[in-house]
Amino acid sequence: MSIAADPNSCSPRAADAHSRNLACGRVYIGVRGVEIVCAMPAPQPIRRQYKDEVIQLLASRGVSVNDIAELVMLIQKSYLPNLTMDACRRSVRKVLAKRETQNAIFTGVALDMLAEKGLLPPPLVDMLRQDDSLYGIDEVMALAIVNVYGSIGLTNFGYLDKSKLGVVGRLNDPRAGQVNTFLDDLVSAVAAAAAARLAHHERDVAD
Amino acid sequence: MSIAADPNSCSPRAADAHSRNLACGRVYIGVRGVEIVCAMPAPQPIRRQYKDEVIQLLASRGVSVNDIAELVMLIQKSYLPNLTMDACRRSVRKVLAKRETQNAIFTGVALDMLAEKGLLPPPLVDMLRQDDSLYGIDEVMALAIVNVYGSIGLTNFGYLDKSKLGVVGRLNDPRAGQVNTFLDDLVSAVAAAAAARLAHHERDVAD
Amino acid sequence: MSIAADPNSCSPRAADAHSRNLACGRVYIGVRGVEIVCAMPAPQPIRRQYKDEVIQLLASRGVSVNDIAELVMLIQKSYLPNLTMDACRRSVRKVLAKRETQNAIFTGVALDMLAEKGLLPPPLVDMLRQDDSLYGIDEVMALAIVNVYGSIGLTNFGYLDKSKLGVVGRLNDPRAGQVNTFLDDLVSAVAAAAAARLAHHERDVAD
Amino acid sequence: MSIAADPNSCSPRAADAHSRNLACGRVYIGVRGVEIVCAMPAPQPIRRQYKDEVIQLLASRGVSVNDIAELVMLIQKSYLPNLTMDACRRSVRKVLAKRETQNAIFTGVALDMLAEKGLLPPPLVDMLRQDDSLYGIDEVMALAIVNVYGSIGLTNFGYLDKSKLGVVGRLNDPRAGQVNTFLDDLVSAVAAAAAARLAHHERDVAD
Repeated sequence: MSIAADPNSCSPRAADAHSRNLACGRVYIGVRGVEIVCAMPAPQPIRRQYKDEVIQLLASRGVSVNDIAELVMLIQKSYLPNLTMDACRRSVRKVLAKRETQNAIFTGVALDMLAEKGLLPPPLVDMLRQDDSLYGIDEVMALAIVNVYGSIGLTNFGYLDKSKLGVVGRLNDPRAGQVNTFLDDLVSAVAAAAAARLAHHERDVAD
Repeated sequence: MSIAADPNSCSPRAADAHSRNLACGRVYIGVRGVEIVCAMPAPQPIRRQYKDEVIQLLASRGVSVNDIAELVMLIQKSYLPNLTMDACRRSVRKVLAKRETQNAIFTGVALDMLAEKGLLPPPLVDMLRQDDSLYGIDEVMALAIVNVYGSIGLTNFGYLDKSKLGVVGRLNDPRAGQVNTFLDDLVSAVAAAAAARLAHHERDVAD
Repeated sequence: MSIAADPNSCSPRAADAHSRNLACGRVYIGVRGVEIVCAMPAPQPIRRQYKDEVIQLLASRGVSVNDIAELVMLIQKSYLPNLTMDACRRSVRKVLAKRETQNAIFTGVALDMLAEKGLLPPPLVDMLRQDDSLYGIDEVMALAIVNVYGSIGLTNFGYLDKSKLGVVGRLNDPRAGQVNTFLDDLVSAVAAAAAARLAHHERDVAD
Repeated sequence: MSIAADPNSCSPRAADAHSRNLACGRVYIGVRGVEIVCAMPAPQPIRRQYKDEVIQLLASRGVSVNDIAELVMLIQKSYLPNLTMDACRRSVRKVLAKRETQNAIFTGVALDMLAEKGLLPPPLVDMLRQDDSLYGIDEVMALAIVNVYGSIGLTNFGYLDKSKLGVVGRLNDPRAGQVNTFLDDLVSAVAAAAAARLAHHERDVAD
């Protein structure tokens, strides 16, 4: 037997099961021999801005704005000797306020998390769980972020992703116990875009 | 109470529940008051070639090799008057044999299907279910396919995606009852790459 | 015999020859049996903003801001029924104020003009003069502009470039007597980016 | 007075002037008070393959196939311990046989050489002569090469370009007395694509 239930009226147990097991909690949950189908919530209008949600999502995966700002400092300090950590953090926040960045992070991190839970079909789940070096879609998605401040971020993106400095190295450590196939590229891309933004901005104010 | 079970030894009912509800069937399934955790299968080695799987996956979403070949014919017949449907189908199959194409299709179609089932977190699920025109990640992923035969496919990709000719139009029809946010871009991209391949090939043999 | 001369002190005739024949006029010009080498001017600092120069350069090649705004109107009017030509022109100017756009236009139009004058080496000069459909670098350079407002401009770019609406069709007419291999793609890209900007902006203010 | 002359019938002196001063020698050359217009040669059909020409062009700018193969070895030897220099050279040659690679190299190197001779208009000539870090079009053009073997080359491209290993470092040395704004990115891109090709190939034969 199968009954549809509004997620708001789901029994605590179902809600609990859901929140532990699945990121969105709108799925078939069996409780006491009865299969309850949590009804799909009504579609929500897309908001203009999800910066806070993106920062929270990154934090839940172990990455802070400060972690990314440290990467920006690492790659820009030799070009901009007066650069402060405060300016780096500000630049990271500006990149995270861009719609293209938010959409790439929402998508890539969702894929990482679904791979972690085995909720992706094969062979995709295996490619992501093993961080297959021939997968390539992680780099493509990161490119959407890098391009936000023009193509000058491309080399910094590649450099960060390959050198595995700072938080990128930590994300690549298999002991993290997390699938970070997309996340490490996304973080490198945000740092590269934030560095490109600072470089553009420098000339704009110098003029 | 929660017990781990090998998916191969899952009760028929659980297996059934899973295959109906979730593409990969490795998830928490409640049966008769007992929460069974289907153990994650051992990671599979990534194979070299998934062309057959990709063709099957597209078919399961309502797109045949022939549908895509018709798009190739539409955009190339004025340039290559002797072009046959057979050559178009062959070119589509060549594009589908490329790793980059396969990975983009596996990823994009998985996201479409997860959105359909409500298995993606908000706001991503809403962006995909509404085919939000500002989402953009579908175009980025398609680009990975277009680039397989060089940048000359870019304009054909955009043209197909916007004109909604043939199968692309069908996929965009909301009565399809399917989330096709990624699929329509992926199909346009495969057709554009197959057309680019034919154009390159024409000069190569002409020489 | 060969003497170096400051371009400012070049004889009127040399200056005249130069301005007619070569865009930058810093080259070897023979006058009255004497080869005068116009000295290379001192390098100029790169300015922050070249919007006016870009608009002039486009005008000198037969493309006005209004021409591009008309393309924006064509592709956006069905989505934004209240869109005015004034808003389209404003959006085009915003795209033309971006450094990435300016650099792509300076580079692409220079290549068109050098091809026109036969100042490029073979086989490049032949590819550009014949607008070789397998060249591809024109599409790549246009992509740098499209990406300025995110990947949602990709499909509009391809559509405009292929449909040859408005000024794009005029540029593709061989009777134009001009090499426009890069220019038609650049113009399509600016219009696509300006349309993407309007689409993003619409949601930003609606919120 | 101005007379048109076939370049084949140009006086030795004019031909000489041309070949010294201008890469293609089809321009207005003044000899003995008479302005001779070397007629533009008839357009040449585009050939299928320009690998030898591209290798020669790179050699004339100080880059050998072996130089690029050394970069491939540097970035791939830790992943493919049995990799030989011979396999690296073979992979570089395969990348150089691709039309997209050839077109990007022809275009980028032509721009470098024209900037060297002051034959580009301002401000483009200044951006290229100073290797302006905000120019960005060099990275975009390199991307056309990187993509030839899929997006997995992106990180290696950025790493090589930034680390300035081997020949890339040499090209960046201002004492080279050459404008290499495009060349260093193009060389990094060819090496990154050749490395990606080897990585893909490894799995293909292993299967």
